[in-house]
Amino acid sequence: MHCRHLSLLFLSACLYPAYPATAGESLLELLSVLKDNGTISEAQYNKLADAVEDDLDAQDEEEDAENQLHIDTKGGLEVATYDGEFSFELGGRLMVDAAYYDESLNDLGSGTELRRARLDLEGILFGDWAYEFGIDFAGSDADIKDAYLSYLGFDPVSIQVGQFKEPFSLEELTSSRYISFMERALPNELAPGRHIGIGARRYWDSWTAAAGVFGEAFDDDSDDEGDEGWALTGRLTYSPWHHDLGALHLGGALSRRWTSDEDSAKFSARPESHVTDVKYLNTGKIRDTETIDRYGLEAAWVSGPWSLQGEYLGARLGRESGLDDISFQGWYLYGSWFLTGESRNYKFKKGAFGRVKPHARSGAWELVARYSHLDLDDGSITGGVERNWTLGVNWYINRHVRLMANYTRVDNNINADDDGDVLGNDDPSVFQTRIQADF
Amino acid sequence: MHCRHLSLLFLSACLYPAYPATAGESLLELLSVLKDNGTISEAQYNKLADAVEDDLDAQDEEEDAENQLHIDTKGGLEVATYDGEFSFELGGRLMVDAAYYDESLNDLGSGTELRRARLDLEGILFGDWAYEFGIDFAGSDADIKDAYLSYLGFDPVSIQVGQFKEPFSLEELTSSRYISFMERALPNELAPGRHIGIGARRYWDSWTAAAGVFGEAFDDDSDDEGDEGWALTGRLTYSPWHHDLGALHLGGALSRRWTSDEDSAKFSARPESHVTDVKYLNTGKIRDTETIDRYGLEAAWVSGPWSLQGEYLGARLGRESGLDDISFQGWYLYGSWFLTGESRNYKFKKGAFGRVKPHARSGAWELVARYSHLDLDDGSITGGVERNWTLGVNWYINRHVRLMANYTRVDNNINADDDGDVLGNDDPSVFQTRIQADF
Amino acid sequence: MHCRHLSLLFLSACLYPAYPATAGESLLELLSVLKDNGTISEAQYNKLADAVEDDLDAQDEEEDAENQLHIDTKGGLEVATYDGEFSFELGGRLMVDAAYYDESLNDLGSGTELRRARLDLEGILFGDWAYEFGIDFAGSDADIKDAYLSYLGFDPVSIQVGQFKEPFSLEELTSSRYISFMERALPNELAPGRHIGIGARRYWDSWTAAAGVFGEAFDDDSDDEGDEGWALTGRLTYSPWHHDLGALHLGGALSRRWTSDEDSAKFSARPESHVTDVKYLNTGKIRDTETIDRYGLEAAWVSGPWSLQGEYLGARLGRESGLDDISFQGWYLYGSWFLTGESRNYKFKKGAFGRVKPHARSGAWELVARYSHLDLDDGSITGGVERNWTLGVNWYINRHVRLMANYTRVDNNINADDDGDVLGNDDPSVFQTRIQADF
Repeated sequence: MHCRHLSLLFLSACLYPAYPATAGESLLELLSVLKDNGTISEAQYNKLADAVEDDLDAQDEEEDAENQLHIDTKGGLEVATYDGEFSFELGGRLMVDAAYYDESLNDLGSGTELRRARLDLEGILFGDWAYEFGIDFAGSDADIKDAYLSYLGFDPVSIQVGQFKEPFSLEELTSSRYISFMERALPNELAPGRHIGIGARRYWDSWTAAAGVFGEAFDDDSDDEGDEGWALTGRLTYSPWHHDLGALHLGGALSRRWTSDEDSAKFSARPESHVTDVKYLNTGKIRDTETIDRYGLEAAWVSGPWSLQGEYLGARLGRESGLDDISFQGWYLYGSWFLTGESRNYKFKKGAFGRVKPHARSGAWELVARYSHLDLDDGSITGGVERNWTLGVNWYINRHVRLMANYTRVDNNINADDDGDVLGNDDPSVFQTRIQADF
Repeated sequence: MHCRHLSLLFLSACLYPAYPATAGESLLELLSVLKDNGTISEAQYNKLADAVEDDLDAQDEEEDAENQLHIDTKGGLEVATYDGEFSFELGGRLMVDAAYYDESLNDLGSGTELRRARLDLEGILFGDWAYEFGIDFAGSDADIKDAYLSYLGFDPVSIQVGQFKEPFSLEELTSSRYISFMERALPNELAPGRHIGIGARRYWDSWTAAAGVFGEAFDDDSDDEGDEGWALTGRLTYSPWHHDLGALHLGGALSRRWTSDEDSAKFSARPESHVTDVKYLNTGKIRDTETIDRYGLEAAWVSGPWSLQGEYLGARLGRESGLDDISFQGWYLYGSWFLTGESRNYKFKKGAFGRVKPHARSGAWELVARYSHLDLDDGSITGGVERNWTLGVNWYINRHVRLMANYTRVDNNINADDDGDVLGNDDPSVFQTRIQADF
Repeated sequence: MHCRHLSLLFLSACLYPAYPATAGESLLELLSVLKDNGTISEAQYNKLADAVEDDLDAQDEEEDAENQLHIDTKGGLEVATYDGEFSFELGGRLMVDAAYYDESLNDLGSGTELRRARLDLEGILFGDWAYEFGIDFAGSDADIKDAYLSYLGFDPVSIQVGQFKEPFSLEELTSSRYISFMERALPNELAPGRHIGIGARRYWDSWTAAAGVFGEAFDDDSDDEGDEGWALTGRLTYSPWHHDLGALHLGGALSRRWTSDEDSAKFSARPESHVTDVKYLNTGKIRDTETIDRYGLEAAWVSGPWSLQGEYLGARLGRESGLDDISFQGWYLYGSWFLTGESRNYKFKKGAFGRVKPHARSGAWELVARYSHLDLDDGSITGGVERNWTLGVNWYINRHVRLMANYTRVDNNINADDDGDVLGNDDPSVFQTRIQADF
């Protein structure tokens, strides 16, 4: 039967979901006109119309089938079935930095760096299962970043297993593609980052909650013959309003980590510039540490092109009997202004910021300023204190390419000597630029 | 000429091979009806029909062209031309483990691990050439797994060049995605694994044969200034029946390796759990070893939801004159039962097992039990003897996601001391779970 | 309105750009015939025709949209929008080598090697931005190769930022997939290779120019606390004719590198075979080196199946006051003949050679012969002198698979002792083969 093959016309449509595949109906309309005019007989009409309708039915079935793919290449590659059951995305990011250090006491090593060179794979399997798998190649070895499975079947609750970021700190949870400065602020060192674990998250209208149990990172196996450390971490966020042009975000997080059998902890931080390897702030290994309690408070406010963001982070090390606890803390505050009128893109469900989409073909321009402070001096531990002022300008050339320039004035105290490797009280300035593309 | 462009309607069809692109014929049918009814003249009919037929011809040609792609995203991404000349598949696997060791004498280090994080690329070039390229990132460096080219032009013979598994051992040749326990059995240490080489395989109705010449693995270049070792390996399998619900598999393999100029060999094995780094069984470096002869016997039987599998593996080290040969051997036997009625999926041509496809949307459940034994004590070599009992349950949530739980009782002899690093005679228990996804 | 959905028929066409999506017009033609014959009334015609034309308009708009993808899988995967705004390509290359060394004084270590195992990602973002990101996994760690962004908006000028090859040397700039021998000639050691930097290129009718400022490679961070070295490099090429069957290429390049605060340089080279780790030529670390000036002259001539190629490269090390400058130089000359009539594929805009496309399904055969010479002896530096004769045969099985065999006679002087690690005056022969596929 020839007409069966008319379905071709409609099948092809399934690549374009915006246009429901009912072309057959306009042919029916023509047949109807021809019948009304007496051009074709009732019998002819019925035969032809039946054939077209058979095809419409066949097509409806086919539409439910899995072959119907949406393919997109606007930055990376995305292939998905329209029924949402399967998808596959492959992308990456490249960030190239150059830094000039206006050195005062110590050599910092001006130069260039491939800051991030990452491959990201993510997808959906059978509707309810999602995976993400990211690898960074920038540091000459291959570093696994996110590598987890999510179960989405209990929406609005989702469950994650694998390596991912502990739910802690607004800036930490915002992707490096979207942070407002080249490097996260000094106190970010107090956030726990990625570890292998299991977690759950859910969201309501203005609240989100996330919590998990975590072991160590996949590459922390130096002490494999002692038991790993583990941690409990939770975060709550509240956002009374969040829309395209504005948002208010408030949040808090708590975490306790029981250290591994090695009983040690260490905190260290570069001067908000990654080309150098000098970490002025450096506690060295703090032995006899049994627990690390962390707490964080977050706030962000976006109103049109203006926004403010700040966090306070602290860590308290519980030590073996006879030793005093040790406390570190830091905070930062920054402001951002889009000269070209865009707004920072708050993603409520994640409690983090996302991609900026320039309004104009010429891109978006943003001015940013930040103060940050981290104090790793406490008791017998002299990790140092640093205070940084940073001014920055970001040019979002398009949705996927960004140029950044940061100028930072660093103010170190006498203990900020990279655990003795450099001189303390060093106050250099940093001028650094980045070009980044993500795809 | 306008009608030329009608071909559009048909061309679009080529993405859907199940529906031959003959939609033009139903238009011809309509034109025919209109002509018969006298609605359009003979001349008009001829002109319109010619145009449609031209388009049908053009379309037929186009169908033979290479643009006709099959794209699939049910786990990973697959793009192939319908003529089979070219294809490209990108996928990966993630396996996340957690292990709790009920320790007796030694610390094993309970904790978590990213067991495998792999990217796999494979494809076909010009019909006769296939490639596969897999990289594992789980161990903080990037480990190349399969990396080879195959020539398929002599079907049923195929030829492989590159790094791939020597044809030896049923369990070794079964992908880590499909093995029935979290880790392969102890005697797997005696199988040669992946090396760079050239091999050929062919299959008949119930037999398969594979053989190859192999050098070293791509990362065995510590002794680069001496000549590499090399090996000859062959395997025969016989399967008198193999269908969807059952199979019988018998096989045997032989291998001789001439060691590199370093003249050494080493065998070691973890207690069927990979989170720990303790390898109770460990011969240390056995110097003055000139050849390693390996032999293996395999059997597997599948009948509906039930199956049994076992292997016996041995290795005999030929040593320099004046020194006695050394022999190691091991075996395992396991049974499997699918509570939900599925069968283990025997792939006859590969002589190995493949993916389990759950019958129900709720997944498949499998119970497994294994006994394994490996003896690395012989003569002056005291690598140790281990005997393990394992019970396991596998939940195949869908074709691509699996949860596993294994409980293993380990029984070590006095020499099972990780070459002196731990105490022998240790009899811990292991409880471990895995979530895995492959895409 | 039903007819709106006719657009489906045309939309589906956008996957086939060769067939402008005007199928609606042939329907209009039919309607017109029916109206002329009086089958349908003027009013009916108008209504139906309007609907079809609305659809044509909608379709025209849609055609400008980004959904229109070209997908290709002939070796790797390529997905591109037809408007050229976005594309994404994923591919790779595998090269497997085996070498047999006919040793005379020293052990070279015959054996096998995975020479290259590379993944390559490239694409276009918003028309004007291109990226490339290549990683090589062959050496057990992951080595970033090209990793850069290009701005193409000033065509014929393009600008590159990131890690890429300094514009220097015809053979260096020709991809390893397309070089005529298994390894580049000895003097290639004097070319600077890949570094992080920023560069610009442009082309005219017969000239091309490229220049850039470069820092260090992404993995040169051993001396991170001193400032990085940096370099200025430029290259000019002239090609009075270049077409499918012939080309003449002349070029020259200059480069000055200011060394990092470590003030050292080092040159070393394997005997044009990579399986061994012996680098007969090896200057060791040359301290007190402040600048490295490099110069290169290039020529290539292609006429049908015949071609010649040669280069002269030199490096002059400027040293601290009181120390004499040091000069190294080398050159090579080779000829190639395609028995099957193909021509080497000169890519004028890049000033380098590209892919050979066999004429016949049975592939292309090429004979090649090369003489190369490198002199790393000067003043107090005794890096050695080596002269190699190589004969080779290449079988291009198809566009993506190639077999190579090279026989090299090595002639070393007394200083060619791998900085003291092996004996000088060694004159081995090398027989090596490669199978390569790129996709």
